[in-house]
Amino acid sequence: MKRGTPVDFKVFRVRRDRARSPKTGKAHDVTVLEAPDWVNVVALTDHDEAVLVRQFRHGTEATTLEIPGGAVDASDRTPLVAAKRELREETGYVARQWRRLGVVEPNPAIQSNSCWTFLAEGARPAGEADPDEGEELEVVLVPRSRLDSLVRAGKIRHSLVVAAFYWLGRHRAEGGNR
Amino acid sequence: MKRGTPVDFKVFRVRRDRARSPKTGKAHDVTVLEAPDWVNVVALTDHDEAVLVRQFRHGTEATTLEIPGGAVDASDRTPLVAAKRELREETGYVARQWRRLGVVEPNPAIQSNSCWTFLAEGARPAGEADPDEGEELEVVLVPRSRLDSLVRAGKIRHSLVVAAFYWLGRHRAEGGNR
Repeated sequence: MKRGTPVDFKVFRVRRDRARSPKTGKAHDVTVLEAPDWVNVVALTDHDEAVLVRQFRHGTEATTLEIPGGAVDASDRTPLVAAKRELREETGYVARQWRRLGVVEPNPAIQSNSCWTFLAEGARPAGEADPDEGEELEVVLVPRSRLDSLVRAGKIRHSLVVAAFYWLGRHRAEGGNR
Repeated sequence: MKRGTPVDFKVFRVRRDRARSPKTGKAHDVTVLEAPDWVNVVALTDHDEAVLVRQFRHGTEATTLEIPGGAVDASDRTPLVAAKRELREETGYVARQWRRLGVVEPNPAIQSNSCWTFLAEGARPAGEADPDEGEELEVVLVPRSRLDSLVRAGKIRHSLVVAAFYWLGRHRAEGGNR
């Protein structure tokens, strides 16, 4: 495979590779988006409320309702460190107990990275949020029991959030301690 | 907002916009990936087996196990038409009954498009698969009851497939007719 030179778009880099089929030997062009790993967090308070964020998203040019999350920075030693940092920065919340729920690949066809989902229990406010430049976030508390109906009603639409709720559902079905 | 000129990478186009915060008035650069809408299909045979595809994916440079899916082409009148075409092209299967399960946004932060998930029941082989150039697919039948354990074991990792299984689980929990 002949790997292309990446074009840097800040939040990700794009490269064009010349790939050869292992089966037929035929060559074709493929496009790959290079990004750091991502994390997201299902944070639940002791009143069984999920800590969500409402924000304007430039991809869809619309306001979304999501769980907190972001990219694993070079200074984060692990995805868990990044998840704790993102929860704190985006919402001002910290949590008593952390657990990894699962990991997905956002899009293995065109992206090289993974997204790690964590469950943060005993979430509580610990100060002001400190979002990145350009981020404007509003924290919204929603009873956990309402999350599925928000997805069904199209209020929560981000695929990585829906995948996180898949993990949350499996965790509970398997006897997670809530 | 000052919209950038898109750079065409075939499967998607990338543009850099200059966006202004509605709240603070401060301008900053944002990157947007333009792609057509996508579809994917949970296809179940009358023996309650899911029709999956195994293929090499260039993003992660690994072989994945996924449900069939792809982009809505300009010639597809609706996402449903695209879903039927993709199932037929990628697996050679057709189905008796189609139903929309749900829709997600693959990544509203950086992408403008949606992904539509369909449930196809009564799936059966109807001829040879006819994949796109560069696609090499192997059809794999898996009992529906094993899908969750394949996700948990990390054998199925594509976020849009996990989101589709979220919809499938909700459909069944709400009394879907299987």
